[in-house]
Amino acid sequence: MKHFLSITDIPDLHQTVQEAIALKNNPYAFEHLGNQKTICLLFFNNSLRTRLSTKKAAIHLGLHVMVMNFGSEGWQLEFADGTTMNHGCSEHIKEAARVVSQFADIVAIRAFAGLVDKKTDEAEMVLSGFLKYASIPVVNMESSVGHPLQALADAITLAEHSTGTQPKVVLSWAPHPKALPHAVANSFIQMMQRQDAEFVITHPKGYELDPKITKDITIVHEQETALENANFVYVKNWSSYQRYGKVLTQDPEWMMTKQKLGKAKFMHCLPVRRNVVVEDAVLDSEQSLCIDQANNRTYAAQIILKKILVP
Amino acid sequence: MKHFLSITDIPDLHQTVQEAIALKNNPYAFEHLGNQKTICLLFFNNSLRTRLSTKKAAIHLGLHVMVMNFGSEGWQLEFADGTTMNHGCSEHIKEAARVVSQFADIVAIRAFAGLVDKKTDEAEMVLSGFLKYASIPVVNMESSVGHPLQALADAITLAEHSTGTQPKVVLSWAPHPKALPHAVANSFIQMMQRQDAEFVITHPKGYELDPKITKDITIVHEQETALENANFVYVKNWSSYQRYGKVLTQDPEWMMTKQKLGKAKFMHCLPVRRNVVVEDAVLDSEQSLCIDQANNRTYAAQIILKKILVP
Amino acid sequence: MKHFLSITDIPDLHQTVQEAIALKNNPYAFEHLGNQKTICLLFFNNSLRTRLSTKKAAIHLGLHVMVMNFGSEGWQLEFADGTTMNHGCSEHIKEAARVVSQFADIVAIRAFAGLVDKKTDEAEMVLSGFLKYASIPVVNMESSVGHPLQALADAITLAEHSTGTQPKVVLSWAPHPKALPHAVANSFIQMMQRQDAEFVITHPKGYELDPKITKDITIVHEQETALENANFVYVKNWSSYQRYGKVLTQDPEWMMTKQKLGKAKFMHCLPVRRNVVVEDAVLDSEQSLCIDQANNRTYAAQIILKKILVP
Repeated sequence: MKHFLSITDIPDLHQTVQEAIALKNNPYAFEHLGNQKTICLLFFNNSLRTRLSTKKAAIHLGLHVMVMNFGSEGWQLEFADGTTMNHGCSEHIKEAARVVSQFADIVAIRAFAGLVDKKTDEAEMVLSGFLKYASIPVVNMESSVGHPLQALADAITLAEHSTGTQPKVVLSWAPHPKALPHAVANSFIQMMQRQDAEFVITHPKGYELDPKITKDITIVHEQETALENANFVYVKNWSSYQRYGKVLTQDPEWMMTKQKLGKAKFMHCLPVRRNVVVEDAVLDSEQSLCIDQANNRTYAAQIILKKILVP
Repeated sequence: MKHFLSITDIPDLHQTVQEAIALKNNPYAFEHLGNQKTICLLFFNNSLRTRLSTKKAAIHLGLHVMVMNFGSEGWQLEFADGTTMNHGCSEHIKEAARVVSQFADIVAIRAFAGLVDKKTDEAEMVLSGFLKYASIPVVNMESSVGHPLQALADAITLAEHSTGTQPKVVLSWAPHPKALPHAVANSFIQMMQRQDAEFVITHPKGYELDPKITKDITIVHEQETALENANFVYVKNWSSYQRYGKVLTQDPEWMMTKQKLGKAKFMHCLPVRRNVVVEDAVLDSEQSLCIDQANNRTYAAQIILKKILVP
Repeated sequence: MKHFLSITDIPDLHQTVQEAIALKNNPYAFEHLGNQKTICLLFFNNSLRTRLSTKKAAIHLGLHVMVMNFGSEGWQLEFADGTTMNHGCSEHIKEAARVVSQFADIVAIRAFAGLVDKKTDEAEMVLSGFLKYASIPVVNMESSVGHPLQALADAITLAEHSTGTQPKVVLSWAPHPKALPHAVANSFIQMMQRQDAEFVITHPKGYELDPKITKDITIVHEQETALENANFVYVKNWSSYQRYGKVLTQDPEWMMTKQKLGKAKFMHCLPVRRNVVVEDAVLDSEQSLCIDQANNRTYAAQIILKKILVP
């Protein structure tokens, strides 16, 4: 693997999930692979799980790790070509990406959607800037439109809780007070499109995601109908895609409850707002897989880094 | 040792101090203990000594270290049970503590008192939240009401400067422009209660500490009387406990001076405001042990981490 | 080598540059040198290249690394002697420097010029404070008046691109919207004074640097004349030294262009504002050495740390 930008960069998802589970059983088995190699983790946004799990994955592989909060510790970056840089930005992505490439063997980047301008977000300025100008492999630790390490961790979690038969998986929108990006939902959908499963998305009208991502997946606007006979329910808020970045409703009727969940397993990428997105009774039950999902972030990152180290 | 929350978690203080001194003489003797293990240092407040000494202790033991400034790098935490999280906080302590437990073998936490509400501070929301929901050992790097790694470093320093006879130790309040927590004073007192020493506390009226901590220790309101024949004088400001978090006086008469100190050794946890808490002449003299105390923070942390690694 | 504060601390520049190039060819050859030793990198200002390259150099030498953003993670420091510290600063440089010395074997420090008061900046409060009170070697990662690791990286870059004959090197001032320090220019000049080269400085009138630094170096106010037959052109903005910290002009005529550059190689320490300091056509051409310079920061730091580890 050269870069890891999208869940679609994984040629064989099932095989990769099995390899990740093998790593989980023996995390330090490939500690020699990172010998005398360095990964640089660049954060343009906050992070708990991604910060710790990606570092942990790198430690397992024996990599040296350099973590940098780019926004607060470095320089404001310019992304446009040909600009006269006489305003706020001190450094151009061209130099930043080339320079980081001198010091690291792999660079992993987190840069959220701004949710102001769809075109800007879909251009993935930070990630695609590094991709264009860096001379080392680039790993997506959540960009404007995708969070593939989360989706891979979700695939690992689904596999670990598989009952052997084809499951029904539902992605259910949930209310949230703030406008959130589409990245987690997008990557989860792209991952599910490669699974042998019945997959349904449910959300209020107006919350349709990018049709280039959802393609021909069944979308149901009645949550109750969508949830019938579900085996796994992935709950996630996102802001409107059509009326880009807007919060159209916070209708509490869409919150996931124990009753709605039935016997299904509950999934969420975290952080989660309790009793807004999902009620306590779900999170505190055995049906919640969200801590497993977080744990699997380590092995998702680790199998990707391993594939980059040994292409 | 399972957790280290208070100086009272150490079963045999004298023995532990001797073990710490042995580590100081051979810091890398147990470098194999941390092999393939990781400690996560979570800072909810600023830190110089604790940050560097705890990391150094972990390095000595061969642990991998992940440092995180939780406030600025992670998500705002909710601590209350059953809240509808539709305001500022993005993540609940339940998830945060469980998630960190997936990535580390030990978690160490710094979270100061807010000094606004006594009940809130005494509930130790952050530390007790992690204790309740984490599945890994928890280490106190200064909480609302205690700073046991400092007190253990102080005990090591006292032992190193012991003259063999029972010493007189005085804890003397000092003026300070800002309201400071009671944590250092509390843990020092709890540590002294387990020492074979004459121990006296002196402070202006109104600065009585929590009587559940001070118990039957002699409290003298005339500083000069308290200091008579002292061998060690520990100087520290704290805000009022009764009129919680208030600065009642900044009377410079309470500043420690070379003259008042006499032949006693001077101790302070640092950082210290020169010529407010203590005059230059004391800090710049051979009688000051505060740099030794700071150095011993490493070995205090190290013996605790060692006891957690090898219970 | 005991400390590294200035490029003049290197006894034999040519020899040191050759040693750095040898390290570049075999970066991990001395990985054993840092065994069980720790370097502390203290940042009082932002940093990208210095942060990553100095950490990388330390990793190459097998050092443990502790990075700290002193401003945001530690305590506000007081530098004046004898002050009554009842205002903003919580800790004195005396304690901070002594304490850091307990936890590290080497301390490296970045603390920029404030550009408000010349006397204050030239006193180098932070760097000289650590030098005075620390008991361990001190390394300058850019101080108020010097950036010697950059100058050493520049010397390595010049050596790598040497054509064997005595080169003409020009330091050319460039426009910039903000007031910038003199550190890079100062150290580059001090480095060039020890090179076998024709060296010329060009800048608008009023931008004369400290005459104690420039000494008898040729200064030409017509950029075009200065650039004639140049082999290497080092471009850099600095604010006025006479009218201390002022931006006297942003005249775009002084921007470096491909046409002005001719066949010379272009050098800059980065970050650089495109189309203000230098036009895109230069940075995007084969004539630009600035990424090489950034890369050589690693080996500049590494040879210095090696000399400190093995004096």
